[in-house]
Amino acid sequence: MSFRVHVRVMPRAGLLDPQGQAVEHALSALGFPDAGEVRVGRAIELDVAAGSRAEAEARARAMCDKLLANPVTEDYLVEVEGS
Amino acid sequence: MSFRVHVRVMPRAGLLDPQGQAVEHALSALGFPDAGEVRVGRAIELDVAAGSRAEAEARARAMCDKLLANPVTEDYLVEVEGS
Repeated sequence: MSFRVHVRVMPRAGLLDPQGQAVEHALSALGFPDAGEVRVGRAIELDVAAGSRAEAEARARAMCDKLLANPVTEDYLVEVEGS
Repeated sequence: MSFRVHVRVMPRAGLLDPQGQAVEHALSALGFPDAGEVRVGRAIELDVAAGSRAEAEARARAMCDKLLANPVTEDYLVEVEGS
């Protein structure tokens, strides 16, 4: 079986996010002063071949720990589609 | 009122995603041959000051159209937290 997995990798809370600040300033300049606390991270989607939904999630978490996220500076969230 | 909004900006289906391909190859080399169809996009989180949840979503969509997403090459998904 194959599961579609969505991963969100964000800069850890409390850490500076220069990209988020740049986007926030740009939004304000474009007429969106109602935006604040902008954080920019990565969204990754992938198919994971696994025997169960739980196994797919565990595999995706292992991928995050090994490659997709930087454990020092980033947090990640794994969602298996349809769950 | 302020709403926390999550935006996911992904390369449009059918368009080449070199970053996704690079990640897929790296995963395979690291012992994850069970990953496929990898796509890499951006995850953006922000607070939107608005009178209602629907208004916050509409404002976030306007931000995507104007700045956060490239309408030619990317699709976006807006989710207001708690909805």
